[in-house]
Amino acid sequence: MVTATSAGGTTATVEAANAEAFARLDAADPWVVDVVPARNAIPGYADNLVLTSGAPMEWQDYVGGQREALIGGALFEGLARTRAEAIAGFESGAIRIGACHDFGAVGSLAGIYTASMPVFVVENRTHGNIGFCNFYEGKEPRRLNYGCYDEGVHERLVHVNTVLAPVVGEAIRRSGGVSLKPLIARALRMGDEVHSRNAAASLLFNREILPATLDMVRDGFPGVREAMVHLAENDYFFLRLSMAAAKASADAMVVPGSTLVSAMAFSCRGFAIKLAGLGDRWFEGPPPVHEGKLFAGHAEDEITWMGGESPITETIGLGGLAQACALTLQEYQGGSPEIMIERNRQMYEITHGENAVYRIPLFGFRGTPTAIDARKVLRTGITPVMDVGLAGRDGGQIGAGIIRAPLECFEMAMAAFTAGDTTG
Amino acid sequence: MVTATSAGGTTATVEAANAEAFARLDAADPWVVDVVPARNAIPGYADNLVLTSGAPMEWQDYVGGQREALIGGALFEGLARTRAEAIAGFESGAIRIGACHDFGAVGSLAGIYTASMPVFVVENRTHGNIGFCNFYEGKEPRRLNYGCYDEGVHERLVHVNTVLAPVVGEAIRRSGGVSLKPLIARALRMGDEVHSRNAAASLLFNREILPATLDMVRDGFPGVREAMVHLAENDYFFLRLSMAAAKASADAMVVPGSTLVSAMAFSCRGFAIKLAGLGDRWFEGPPPVHEGKLFAGHAEDEITWMGGESPITETIGLGGLAQACALTLQEYQGGSPEIMIERNRQMYEITHGENAVYRIPLFGFRGTPTAIDARKVLRTGITPVMDVGLAGRDGGQIGAGIIRAPLECFEMAMAAFTAGDTTG
Repeated sequence: MVTATSAGGTTATVEAANAEAFARLDAADPWVVDVVPARNAIPGYADNLVLTSGAPMEWQDYVGGQREALIGGALFEGLARTRAEAIAGFESGAIRIGACHDFGAVGSLAGIYTASMPVFVVENRTHGNIGFCNFYEGKEPRRLNYGCYDEGVHERLVHVNTVLAPVVGEAIRRSGGVSLKPLIARALRMGDEVHSRNAAASLLFNREILPATLDMVRDGFPGVREAMVHLAENDYFFLRLSMAAAKASADAMVVPGSTLVSAMAFSCRGFAIKLAGLGDRWFEGPPPVHEGKLFAGHAEDEITWMGGESPITETIGLGGLAQACALTLQEYQGGSPEIMIERNRQMYEITHGENAVYRIPLFGFRGTPTAIDARKVLRTGITPVMDVGLAGRDGGQIGAGIIRAPLECFEMAMAAFTAGDTTG
Repeated sequence: MVTATSAGGTTATVEAANAEAFARLDAADPWVVDVVPARNAIPGYADNLVLTSGAPMEWQDYVGGQREALIGGALFEGLARTRAEAIAGFESGAIRIGACHDFGAVGSLAGIYTASMPVFVVENRTHGNIGFCNFYEGKEPRRLNYGCYDEGVHERLVHVNTVLAPVVGEAIRRSGGVSLKPLIARALRMGDEVHSRNAAASLLFNREILPATLDMVRDGFPGVREAMVHLAENDYFFLRLSMAAAKASADAMVVPGSTLVSAMAFSCRGFAIKLAGLGDRWFEGPPPVHEGKLFAGHAEDEITWMGGESPITETIGLGGLAQACALTLQEYQGGSPEIMIERNRQMYEITHGENAVYRIPLFGFRGTPTAIDARKVLRTGITPVMDVGLAGRDGGQIGAGIIRAPLECFEMAMAAFTAGDTTG
């Protein structure tokens, strides 16, 4: 068993650091204030930059769907005219690859960002930092973030850029921004956990911008009806807002000496975590363990890992850590109410505290288990549970389920913490 | 113990009749198709008619808040200029009183309808019958249906008549009607039981009419923004639609020989039920037993009965019979998740079957307990549970809670059934 030694801090100083990191998370106040193309929104964004999920890697380490997604991103952005050109560009460095988290962003599945893609700008009004997330591509299983790029994917991405984002952005600005924390809290009472289920949150968000959109119709703003009907039909729309809100909240957790997890993400290679006390360093283990339910016509051996940073929601006490709010997910991702409830309860054993705002009706409004403590994960052997979409080896979404973070990440992180080793 | 004898039908014929009544309820397909003033929508509606909740009574039997509500209705409609004139009008019969149910309508609390009030027209497309319900007055605790009538109540009713109803009616017509059964089924997955909690259903309904309302703004239809913002702020809005849908569904249950409950309603005097096999006859017992949670500043001894027909939702397997979908209600009406879940489970003991469409995620999507069988109520001594708002003796809503139907109604109904006595 690894415990904090004097190098990583005494138990008392760790407790104090964790209490502070928890308090900072608790105080975070995420507001979506704008929608702007990545190149204009994200500091340091270059036109030839493609972001993707997980701890940073070299081009040759990206394989399968995540590699395809990177190539698709380069083609979509016009950084290359052919697959071969894209591959050559990545190899030569003419097309750069970045890790989303290093740019204040989080990516869903493969998590591809390119310069022209619009991103939600979510401001943490308590601490002043910003989190970004780009848009949901729609219900079609073939999506760029699931490793697909074809005519249909291209068209849907263009629709996001040219219709959806301009309307939603204008509506958000006219609304003076939308406060996301109370909206998420409300969604938890309405069957969401805002990771794999966002049906209520999407409706609640649409309600927030409704007056503005009605004014935009009056003013002849183009595309409002089309955009609003699209939003109304896409129950997953809000996920990108919950991810950006979670990123803006979790980034406020940086406190020296804290063993609380401040990020969780994976690439095609492995699952990685950050600790609030160890800055930007990733601790990467093998891919996650999964348990899922596949869409009709798909088989277990098709499941592949191509990245995912939506576990930022679990990092702040949502998603799998609030799944007792969203029992309807049993239909989508498998499991039974009993299993989901028990899994959720188990998470209290590895978290620092209970959320003050995000609460679970089924548990008598007990706050969600919040802020995973790497020490407790090692002590109990219980690993964080996450609700995720499952990708197929030929691209596209083929199901959904839960994953467990591998224990190795926590062992490595606590080893570094104990050794006082905070270097990257 | 009262059981069906040969006069009321053999067990086999009762079972067959109940199966048919249940199948008819199951097949009901309620659509809201229009909003029209009561005088134009409801067959036989006279300009001097005021409807109210519960089994029909004489004017002198209406006391307390229900009497005040009747007087308020007469004043609102201009049938009298003063309280004294209204009272004289009711006494002389110049102002008529009717029971909502006799007009295919259901009333919330005191349930006052007057000729100019707009009503939702809900068509059961399977059986061709129509159910009506008028509009929610808004969040303000002082409402006509809670026995209040003053300047504010008047203004809010005028707003319903002149702004809300015209916009919502036009939107419904432009939408080609809205199918309510799938919408209610969805709301049950989103924390509603569509009696005391309608937050999701209201949002889902607003989503259905959204394209139409955007077109109406484009076309310069007046009041759309005001109406839509009002709708967005009133989570209870949908209750009147769920009531009308329930009425249109329950009215299809009329089957000779059936012991299933086809209506439940109460007045200031008592709680009453109808059986599917005994036509329009009411069996009235004492007021219901309650268990509630009061708003701050109110006391238990203020609680008063002034009518209520929203238990039509429980009649078709919603509300209290689906409260395990809506555990957030613990905050509003008291109780704990454990109690709510147990109460909901208990209802399977007194119902004929499980709903094919309305399902409970927490119970692994088991259908809600549906169609109360008076025989089973007598056999078990378990009475139907309903989620309701609680009225205060000085008018207005002072809390919320659950009520239980009194056993006497079921004893009387089964005695009449057994005697083969179907006369009124």
